Amino acid sequence: MEPEALRRGLEAAGQGHVLRFWAELGGAGRRALREQLQGLDCGALGAAFRRAGQGGARLGLDTRMEPLPRAVLGSATRDAERLPAWERQGLHQISQSKVAVLLLAGGQGTRLGVSYPKGMYDVGLPSHKTLFQIQAERILKLQQLAEEQHGTECVIPWYIMTSSRTMESTKEFFLEHNYFGLKQENVIIFQQGMLPAMDFDGKILLEEKGKVSMAPDGNGGLYRALGAHGIVEDMERRGIWSIHMYCVDNILVKVADPRFIGFCLQKEAECGAKVVEKTNPMEPVGVVCSVDGTYQVVEYSEISLATAQKRSPDGRLLFNAGNIANHYLTVPFLRDVVNIYEPQLKHHVAQKKIPYVDLSSGQQVKPDKPNGIKMEKFVFDIFPFAKRFVVYEVLREDEFSPLKNADSQNGKDNPTTARHALMSLHHCWVLNAGGHFVDENGTRIPAIPRMTRGRPDAIPADARCNLKDANDLPVQCEISPLVSYGGEGLEKYVENKEFHAPLIIDESGIHERVKNCVDSFSGSQQAQHSL
Amino acid sequence: MEPEALRRGLEAAGQGHVLRFWAELGGAGRRALREQLQGLDCGALGAAFRRAGQGGARLGLDTRMEPLPRAVLGSATRDAERLPAWERQGLHQISQSKVAVLLLAGGQGTRLGVSYPKGMYDVGLPSHKTLFQIQAERILKLQQLAEEQHGTECVIPWYIMTSSRTMESTKEFFLEHNYFGLKQENVIIFQQGMLPAMDFDGKILLEEKGKVSMAPDGNGGLYRALGAHGIVEDMERRGIWSIHMYCVDNILVKVADPRFIGFCLQKEAECGAKVVEKTNPMEPVGVVCSVDGTYQVVEYSEISLATAQKRSPDGRLLFNAGNIANHYLTVPFLRDVVNIYEPQLKHHVAQKKIPYVDLSSGQQVKPDKPNGIKMEKFVFDIFPFAKRFVVYEVLREDEFSPLKNADSQNGKDNPTTARHALMSLHHCWVLNAGGHFVDENGTRIPAIPRMTRGRPDAIPADARCNLKDANDLPVQCEISPLVSYGGEGLEKYVENKEFHAPLIIDESGIHERVKNCVDSFSGSQQAQHSL
Repeated sequence: MEPEALRRGLEAAGQGHVLRFWAELGGAGRRALREQLQGLDCGALGAAFRRAGQGGARLGLDTRMEPLPRAVLGSATRDAERLPAWERQGLHQISQSKVAVLLLAGGQGTRLGVSYPKGMYDVGLPSHKTLFQIQAERILKLQQLAEEQHGTECVIPWYIMTSSRTMESTKEFFLEHNYFGLKQENVIIFQQGMLPAMDFDGKILLEEKGKVSMAPDGNGGLYRALGAHGIVEDMERRGIWSIHMYCVDNILVKVADPRFIGFCLQKEAECGAKVVEKTNPMEPVGVVCSVDGTYQVVEYSEISLATAQKRSPDGRLLFNAGNIANHYLTVPFLRDVVNIYEPQLKHHVAQKKIPYVDLSSGQQVKPDKPNGIKMEKFVFDIFPFAKRFVVYEVLREDEFSPLKNADSQNGKDNPTTARHALMSLHHCWVLNAGGHFVDENGTRIPAIPRMTRGRPDAIPADARCNLKDANDLPVQCEISPLVSYGGEGLEKYVENKEFHAPLIIDESGIHERVKNCVDSFSGSQQAQHSL
Repeated sequence: MEPEALRRGLEAAGQGHVLRFWAELGGAGRRALREQLQGLDCGALGAAFRRAGQGGARLGLDTRMEPLPRAVLGSATRDAERLPAWERQGLHQISQSKVAVLLLAGGQGTRLGVSYPKGMYDVGLPSHKTLFQIQAERILKLQQLAEEQHGTECVIPWYIMTSSRTMESTKEFFLEHNYFGLKQENVIIFQQGMLPAMDFDGKILLEEKGKVSMAPDGNGGLYRALGAHGIVEDMERRGIWSIHMYCVDNILVKVADPRFIGFCLQKEAECGAKVVEKTNPMEPVGVVCSVDGTYQVVEYSEISLATAQKRSPDGRLLFNAGNIANHYLTVPFLRDVVNIYEPQLKHHVAQKKIPYVDLSSGQQVKPDKPNGIKMEKFVFDIFPFAKRFVVYEVLREDEFSPLKNADSQNGKDNPTTARHALMSLHHCWVLNAGGHFVDENGTRIPAIPRMTRGRPDAIPADARCNLKDANDLPVQCEISPLVSYGGEGLEKYVENKEFHAPLIIDESGIHERVKNCVDSFSGSQQAQHSL
């Protein structure tokens, strides 16, 4: 395309200013900018901007929200007697290779203090497995469980959405690790789209004189990416019916959870959301509820405190279905989402401080207050389109511990909380399978360990110890997903046995470690390589 | 007393070995040891040891536990319509000077990293008030509220139990601060007793050649101390009927909570426990329940995980009444406890590593595994003696945030969590009274702030900032107890107003601080002194 044609198109869309510094660019710079601009549909962008602007705050939302009716709600605690049936149905569908997993993994570990994809992060478990490896092994184990129960070979294909920042390193990582035992053809890695950042008037911002400022289009960009990369067709070709979609940062995620899938199948749902109970009104989490008769997620920033504090007669919060980005969709519904519904969605607008090149001076500016917007869609925006929508409530301590931040003073959702959550759960599994833990004197440790609270010797003597070991007061215990997906099948390893922590159970057997803070960790790293 | 008579008495009780090094002691050493030994009743000690030994683990406890019947349970969430009546009745009794407060404050801040009493700790609130000051001001405010409503002057006497380690500094601290505005005659500071540490055979351990190893006799030592210091008589002389007992470390404690007192009065209870819902089976907290028909606290270390995990049909934990050391007693019941029931209580035995002097070598030994026991009673041991016992459930975020540990990586129950809990509650108060917070651009901050989660700029740029300010992501807001006891009466200060955090409201008015991490803190310290 000639620069002149490009310019005319941009000017027609009111974006001619992005070529302001064209004359200053060298050949390579011009080629790069032209390529970037050719990838943009500026007309569509302008339309999206105008529609995003229209919406504004959702007025009177507080008065239009209603809690979920019991009929659409399944609960891991309140429907305990139905769990076995749901699990059977889910495993049966897995055994027929009708279940796929869709992973949102576009995020870098920026807030974790690393520049690589979050899925490559090692939270410091005794095994030092990364999030990707843990999730891959859960898929492997589920395939194996389904095959054992139904005697047929099956596949759970794994679709992984990356972003421009994580695509290459994610691919390399899986290749390096031989896809953690999965078949390469069943791990489909694709990339999320980007949108230009704009100022408050809808003018595209330049990051450099020859470069438009781009940002990922939100996790709801998933649907556009699924269309762009023919993913739905691939699913249809494979005969998939149920999709489990989740976010990479949850270390406890029950990938392709047969109970959740079975529940959604029995309810004949097109779409479902897994939730955990919100118990504190001030918790910053979106809630699934009904607004004007359609199910949707209302964000914590959209409601007043008075609404967040409302309670049912049973004392629980009225709006307590906390969204954890863990969803179910059928392939036919997803096809309609990609082809019909997603293009109708309005973008959410986030005001941001966006570094830009000043058009008059040509200087790069780092604004100290918001100067522009990023437009995003959210995966849950499509809930209202589902003809049958259900919600499945699970226990936070069993299924949700996201990794968001670096370790810091009293931080939340960081490597330590993730590590503790997983080890505490696995500790429970061992106890429930009839195993016991003993301390250095051979005395049985009470089932419920004291955590930091009330334990004077938890005070750090040595910083390294403190960070990685002494504060791991949930008994250190890690069970490989290859041994147990959700706590099942552990009796043969642990029943009526006593263990010293740290305890690792993996496909090569039971490993107890020497109780010494520094040695145990270097020990476990070596052990990991030799397993 | 002659050494010979002392020796005969000790030998009769099987404790003659404590004089093993008598010949090596100088005059001062002998006098000190003699004084220490004369304070002990070795006969009673031996009897207590044999009885403590008998009990052992409570067998079959898991199968004998039953949840609380609804009839004994009041709930701040499920009985919301009754709260005003309970509050009225409680305030009425306060206005008649029939309510006293009993504070357990024997603990040093050892785990907090300080050597002074916990009540003197400043968690780093904008006002830098200590726990003692916060609690004193709540008492002052309640007296004032009761006087305003009933037109009579009233007093809430405050009984403070210290230990040998905290007695002197506590007294000095109150004196220095003019009892924070309370009358000295209404603040009664007394001291908890001690018991010798013993080895597994019941032999008293020597800490030094001329010094018996002593330990506080548990928070249940309260009742012995009340008897020894004539506290019940003092209460009777003052005409007290209701006692609110609590532990110093809870920054949110509603001292002499009129709702709790009114609830217990309406139920005609002799004794009551305030509880918060236990939501995670692994949480190390005792639960109030019924065992063989009597109400009591079962410690987390006494039950199996399977029992802790049991759930009601509504999905809640079956045993969810988490004990927070926050109780109600009537004076007549307390009199019987001191005179009749307490002496019947068996001691709990805690195995400990106790440094001791070896009797053959005379060397001091620091054992690396438990070598002896400390005998303790617990305040809640007297619950089963109450003829009418009730339980009152409140919200954790409103009333419970204990200060136990120093700040540390992902710690629990430390200065930062305590500070956050208080500021988050006060933030809610301001919003519920019609106030709003705005950010540096004048934009209203959503009611539910993002905490650390999802907020990239929360990553520490500067350690000091991070520790004390940047991580205070609950909007920084502190309201003096002298202005509001429980969120009441704030409309005149905040309704339809917009504030920049940090916000302090105290008896001299509204203070907003300059938003600068370092300056705001030195600023607020200066302001505090000038108020």
